[in-house]
This record gives sequence, structure tokens and C-alpha cells, in this order.
Amino acid sequence: VALSLGHIVESLGGELHGDVNLQIEALAPLATAGTGALAFLSHPKYQQQLASTGATCVIVTPVFAEAAHARGACIVTPDPYHYFARLTQLWKKSHSPARLAGVHPSAVVDPDAHIHPSATIGPLCVVERGACIGADTVLKSRVVVNEDCVIGDRCLLHPGVVIGADGFGFAPHQGLWEKIEQLGAVRIGNDVEIGANSCVDRGAVGDTVLEDGVKLDNLVQIGHNVFVGRHTAMAGCAGVAGSAHIGANCTVGGGAVVLGHLTLADGVNVSASTTVTRSINKPGLYTGIFPTDDNASWEKNAVTLKHLYQLRERIKALEANVTALQSNENTPT
Amino acid sequence: VALSLGHIVESLGGELHGDVNLQIEALAPLATAGTGALAFLSHPKYQQQLASTGATCVIVTPVFAEAAHARGACIVTPDPYHYFARLTQLWKKSHSPARLAGVHPSAVVDPDAHIHPSATIGPLCVVERGACIGADTVLKSRVVVNEDCVIGDRCLLHPGVVIGADGFGFAPHQGLWEKIEQLGAVRIGNDVEIGANSCVDRGAVGDTVLEDGVKLDNLVQIGHNVFVGRHTAMAGCAGVAGSAHIGANCTVGGGAVVLGHLTLADGVNVSASTTVTRSINKPGLYTGIFPTDDNASWEKNAVTLKHLYQLRERIKALEANVTALQSNENTPT
Amino acid sequence: VALSLGHIVESLGGELHGDVNLQIEALAPLATAGTGALAFLSHPKYQQQLASTGATCVIVTPVFAEAAHARGACIVTPDPYHYFARLTQLWKKSHSPARLAGVHPSAVVDPDAHIHPSATIGPLCVVERGACIGADTVLKSRVVVNEDCVIGDRCLLHPGVVIGADGFGFAPHQGLWEKIEQLGAVRIGNDVEIGANSCVDRGAVGDTVLEDGVKLDNLVQIGHNVFVGRHTAMAGCAGVAGSAHIGANCTVGGGAVVLGHLTLADGVNVSASTTVTRSINKPGLYTGIFPTDDNASWEKNAVTLKHLYQLRERIKALEANVTALQSNENTPT
Repeated sequence: VALSLGHIVESLGGELHGDVNLQIEALAPLATAGTGALAFLSHPKYQQQLASTGATCVIVTPVFAEAAHARGACIVTPDPYHYFARLTQLWKKSHSPARLAGVHPSAVVDPDAHIHPSATIGPLCVVERGACIGADTVLKSRVVVNEDCVIGDRCLLHPGVVIGADGFGFAPHQGLWEKIEQLGAVRIGNDVEIGANSCVDRGAVGDTVLEDGVKLDNLVQIGHNVFVGRHTAMAGCAGVAGSAHIGANCTVGGGAVVLGHLTLADGVNVSASTTVTRSINKPGLYTGIFPTDDNASWEKNAVTLKHLYQLRERIKALEANVTALQSNENTPT
Repeated sequence: VALSLGHIVESLGGELHGDVNLQIEALAPLATAGTGALAFLSHPKYQQQLASTGATCVIVTPVFAEAAHARGACIVTPDPYHYFARLTQLWKKSHSPARLAGVHPSAVVDPDAHIHPSATIGPLCVVERGACIGADTVLKSRVVVNEDCVIGDRCLLHPGVVIGADGFGFAPHQGLWEKIEQLGAVRIGNDVEIGANSCVDRGAVGDTVLEDGVKLDNLVQIGHNVFVGRHTAMAGCAGVAGSAHIGANCTVGGGAVVLGHLTLADGVNVSASTTVTRSINKPGLYTGIFPTDDNASWEKNAVTLKHLYQLRERIKALEANVTALQSNENTPT
Repeated sequence: VALSLGHIVESLGGELHGDVNLQIEALAPLATAGTGALAFLSHPKYQQQLASTGATCVIVTPVFAEAAHARGACIVTPDPYHYFARLTQLWKKSHSPARLAGVHPSAVVDPDAHIHPSATIGPLCVVERGACIGADTVLKSRVVVNEDCVIGDRCLLHPGVVIGADGFGFAPHQGLWEKIEQLGAVRIGNDVEIGANSCVDRGAVGDTVLEDGVKLDNLVQIGHNVFVGRHTAMAGCAGVAGSAHIGANCTVGGGAVVLGHLTLADGVNVSASTTVTRSINKPGLYTGIFPTDDNASWEKNAVTLKHLYQLRERIKALEANVTALQSNENTPT
């Protein structure tokens, strides 16, 4: 189904330079877009693609309006990337069958769970007793929501997500591990999205909390009694250990690890593959990645790194010796 | 349902200082506990919370008995954390409906699988032919136990666990990968707990083994023919590559990786995010984490790290030069 | 069921030195093989096990034929490991019931999905509308293939795999995240194997692609619009961020991370736990692992590492000072 430029602008706003009847058949990246495609230019560094793109229409900021219109139709808007995001939503609504609310017959939902009538519980999901699923929330297939866990409105949980499995709690005792039953639950706010096969554990005592607007990618692990502030996003394979408190509007990169009981301030950005071992009190970007090199170079540097402390001591000694030499030199003999 | 202090001490032991009829309505952390709550003090560093807590009763060691009793009821026991663990178990038993043994009708269990009558196979589990599930073992929802895999007694497998998928075995041949069928299985002892979405692969030839009392957190990967000794625990997102042999009473931190074919002695503790590339023969704590810093500092240090070996060579050269200068200085001219 | 050496050689080729009627009851590693077992010697470093093994027959290269035959039966072939791989396939075929094609009654398959009649859709799988599953492909239990995703022939997807969940795409807007609907799909070639609980996300615009012969281990994350070239293999817990382009015949080690939008040439090997932060244009082995040490040594080195850049500056200063001293020394006073 094609959408006309007129329909798009009517739905989403923006200033159209071009024919309202032009038909858009696909959304595409600027570099590869062809006839019938709509693309966007959000960053000046892709500017040179504007001249060469075959896109029927390009979404641009006012700065590029003239250049864009010189080559064909364009939609002018202050934030093209945001406009494009909304356009994908319009596109999906126009091209996919409407979501059906209700519980798929293959799902296993406890009679004492509370499912909002507008929620969708997909195939082969499990919702245990006492769990609450909010309005317009979608559990895609094979999602588990365990006992007493609460999920807000307009959330989207992808296949394989597990909410409310036991946190990892054991008291060591005479060489064995004594189970600490996890008596808390999980509370998830509104507009939260959780990627495939991610896990959010229930609290030991008290709850694990994801605030409104949190976005988790796939295979993310959230330990018991973690708190994640609103609009914080975490990329794939990130892990947060128990009782960590992560602020609002943070980002955690793929494969990053936040150790237990730490606090991250609002607005902290953790790079991919970075392990946070201390609390971070100031917003900003934090990184700890071993630089990757050809294996032979890495090996030489890694071996040396195991003696780095001694190297520092040797530098200290050298400095003392050189200072002595310099001072002797300045002393008339 | 509240529990009286009398009932608690009757069930779990410990020396009660206070009224047996006091009712406990919740378990809570010392810092936030209020009236009706029971908390514990296990580490002297939280000592100052004892004076300020609103808890109705506190579990303490004999050392703190006097201070604890000065402010209200207390239970005195040599290991408050262990006592608390057992209390969570009592609490859960008193507050949750009894577990039902048997196979949920939505589970898919092969007629040639062996399920102990006291075991619980939850919703949407899959148990293949030849698999054995021991007494009082619980497979929560959506657990897979593949062909011929054996799970002992009193185990707990959380949602999404996969036991006995094929190990990752291929013989390279003329640019292609020839599948090595994984002919072994998985053998899991008693009292093992495995977290949500974790995987334990079947052996190539011979079995993958988790001994009694092993505890795995969520999203843990255990490769084929790995051996994990009894009472070893691994935190979330840890990964153990094929044929590694991990001793008893080890701990492996979150996101840590143990490479294939290595041996870890009993009592080895691997820090989070640490990659073990060689066998470890002595118990102790082992770590390899790139320190995290603000991004600008990290970048400078990381770039320098790529030349660390040369820095060492420069220090060597400096040392030689300084020694020469010193020796010249001492030589009468 | 035992297999005779005659039957094995008839099926797989190779030159048998020994009695065709000898019965093989098990495949086993050379070190532990006993009577009735067949083992292989693929690497000269295991040569000394040849003399001591109790194996009834050993698969060897021509170089070891004489030594192997001196101790009993042997099969001579140019590539024993490859021969062994094929033998495991023969073994499995002889010992396991034939795979049944068709859709398990507990699977939820959309009427508008296209399932080849020779494919096997296991228990509790979900296949959404528009998805295609090729000939002889096997979805073990609890696999999800979302809307419009295409899987080729002879693929094997292990339990818990999720194909075609939404990629992680959001446009930041006034402190919130605006969802970018993921309008692409996933296209998987022939002879692809994907391990338990791994995820391959659908593309944002355009598709995520795994070419023929790709092998992914467990808990691997493939982001949206990633391209993985043919016969590339990735070990457990590896993660590839969005729009990365990975060449053919690459290997990615366990827990390694490839950042988004990077390109890896054909034949690149990334070590375990290594984070690739830049494109790699030349085949070869690349590594970035923090060396693991006893915790006390690590701590000293890690602290020093946070000042590595300053150490370099101090070495520079020392070099300048030493040069000055040397030059003064050579200047007649």
C-alpha cells in the first residue's frame, strides 16, 4: 500500500515542498533510496548523499530545505529523525493488521492475574497469579510474567522475556548455599519496552523497579532490587547486578556490566563492554574497553600490562636518578 | 498473614529477647524496616542502623544482643544472614499456596521421559524422551530438558532454561563447517538452581556435568563437556566454554568468561567481567577488568596502552642510559 | 546398537587396517577410550596418547598409520577430525529415531506462514504470518520466527531462539524515546545453525541477513540490519550491534562484542571477550582482553593504568632530560 505525501503531512505535520499526490511505496536509507522511496537527512555528515539519492522525497531540517527541494520533493521539519520515527509508526499502522486485544488461547494465564481488556497476551505466554498487565500493553509470544509482578500501560515485551524469576540470593553456610526466597516482585511503569530473552528478576525483599519509558534491548539481565530510572535505555547483553540504582535518562551500552549496590546519577552514559565498579555521581560518558589490536601486538602489551605497576616504580626511580644527576651537574666540582 | 515471634523461634531456633506474641507482618532491610517488620544485622558496618531502625525485631549475633534488645525485640543467633535465609523460606511456605506436583497440561512431555511423581513440570515446558527429572524438582514455566538429560532431586529451573541443546561443535572443512553431532547429554546433581534463560549444552562425546548444589544465575552459558564442581555459583551472563573443568566451591562473577579446556581449582573466585584465559591452580580471587573512567581519560590511556610494550622498551633504554651516566659521573675525568 | 568397522568404512570411506567385523559400541576421546570404542587422533600433540589408548580403533592420518596399526585397528584418512564429524552423523542416524517432518500440535503457526512439508516445527514454537521455513529445516522446541522472516533449507534452530523481534530503535526526543517501528525482516540462508536462546532482530528498514552456513552458538545477539557473511561462526554470548557488516569465514569468540556500523573483512577472527570498536580490513586474529591476575596484582596494575598517559609523558620528559645530560657530558667543560 502506498501512502501519498499529502496523507503523510496531514497525519504528521511538517512543511511539504512538492506534489501532495506523489506516492510513497517504501521508507529507505538516503544512500540506497530509489523512486517511490522516502528517506531522511538527520546529520550534516550525510549531506553529500542528498545530491545523489534517488529518493522521491527527503525529510530535512530548514537548513537543507533549498538543497533538498532543488532535487525533488521534501518535507521540512525541525527534527527529521524524530519525524521519521513517527512515520514508521504511521507506516506500520497502514500496512499491518490491527493488533488484537485479548489472551491467545495457547497462553497460560492464572485466573487470579489481572489483564486489562485492551492488553494483548500472545501465544504461549505465562502470566501467574497476582500479576497485572496494563492497558494496551503487548506481551508478544512466549513471555513469562511471574507472580505479583506489575506491568504498566503501553508496554511491549518481546518473545522470551522473563519478568519476576527469582533473584540470585543465597546465604553461604558451611560450604553450601542456603536459598533466600525472593519475596519481592517486579514493578514496571508505562511505555516500557523489553527485548527478546531479557530477564528482570523479582526483589528479595522489596521490588525491582523499571520506571516509565525504560527501554531494554535483547538478552539484558536486571538483578533483584535494581532500580532503573525513567527513560533509561540499555543495549543488548547489558547486565545490572542486584540493588544497583540507575538514574533517569541514562544509557548503558551493549555488553556493559553495572556491579551491585552502585548508584548511577541521572544522565550517565556507559559505553559498550564497560564494567562499572564504582558509583558515578556526575552525568557524562564513561568507558572502560581494552583496545583491540592484532593478536601479536595485544599479547606483547597484555604481558607488559601485568607488570605496569613495576614500570611505574621504575619510572619513579629513573626520575630520582636523573634529578640527582642533574643536580650533580649543576654542582661545581 | 502475620507470623508471631514465638512461631518463628519455634520453627527456626534462635534466642528470642522479647514478647513471643509480637506479630511480624513483613521482612525488610534494616534501614527501611518499620513497625511490624523483622530485619537482620549481619555485618558490623551496618551497626549504626541498629539504633535508628523502626523494625519490631532484629536478628543479631550475640555481640549485638544487648544493643538490639535495648531498642526492642531481637533474635540472637550465630549467623543472622543464614537465619534470615531460613526465615524467607518459612515466610514463603506460610504465604504462598503449596506447590503442586505433577505435569501441567500445557507441558509437552515425551512418554519415554522419567518424571518423579513429586516433581513439578510447569506450563509450556518440554521434556524429551529419555530425560529424567528427580524428586521434588521444579521446572518453572517454559523450561526445556532435551533427550536423555538427567536432573537430580530438589532442583529449581527458572523460566526459559534450556538443558541439553547441542554443544557448538563443527569440524572446519574446505571453508565449510561439518556438524559434529553432540552424542553426550547433561547430568545435573541435586539441589541445583538455574536462572532464567540460562543454557547448559549437551556433551559432544560424554556428558556435561553440574554437580550437587551448583547455582547458576540468569543468562548463563555452559558449553559442552564442561564440568562444574559442587556448590559452585555463577552470576548472571557468565559463560563457560567447552570442556572447561571448574572445581567445587568456586564463584564466577557476572559477565565473566572461562575459556575452553581450562581447569579451575576448588575455591577459585573469578571477579565479574573477568576473562580467564589460563588454568588457575590455587584458590583465591582473580580479576581482569579494564578500569572505567570518564571517556576522555579512557581514550588517552587506551591509546597509550596500544604502545605499552614500546614504553617498556623506552624505560629499559633510559635505565641503561642513566646507569651509563651515573657510572661516568663516578669515573674521575 | 554397535556398528561394525566394515559398515563404518563402507559408509564414510577411509582405509581400514583391521577386522571389518570388529564392533564399535561408542565414540570416545582418545585419552579415555576403552574396548569397543572408536577414537581419533587429529593433532600431533596428542600423539603419545596413541600408545596408551584402550580404543578398539583409532582414526589417523597416513603419518600415524603404522603406529596406530601396531596397537590395533585403525582407519586412515587425510582429515581425521572431519572424518570423526561425519562419523558422529552416521552414529546419530543409527541410534536416534528418524526426525519427523511436520508441525507439532502444540506449535502456533499462522495460516499465512509458509512451512516446507519436509521441515520440522517442534513443540511450542511460534511462526508468524508471512514467515517461510525451508526444506528439511528443524525448529526445535520453543523457537519463535516472527512476521515475514525467511529461513532457508537444512537449518537447525535450537530451543528458545527468537528470530525477528524488533531491533532496538528509538529516536530521542525531549528526554523521551520515540519508537522507530522495525519495518524490515530477517533473511537466513541455508545450512545455518543457531544456538539456544539466541536472538536475531528484524531490520529497521531493510533486512537483517545471515548468509549460508552461518553458525551461531547460544545466547548470541544479532542486532537489526546486521549482515553476517557465509560460513561465519560465533561462539556463545557474542553480540553484534546494529548495521555491522561481518564478512565470510569469520569467527567471533565467546562474549565478544562488535559495535554498530562496523565492517569486518572476510577471514577476520575475533578472540573471546574482545570488543571491536573499529572496522577491520585485513584477515587475521584480533584480540583485546584484559589479562587476568590475582586480585591484588590486578588492582595495582589497574590503578596505574588510569595514569598510563601521564606515565608516557613522564617517560618523554625523562628522555629529554637524559639526552640533555648526555649531550652536556659530551661537551667539554
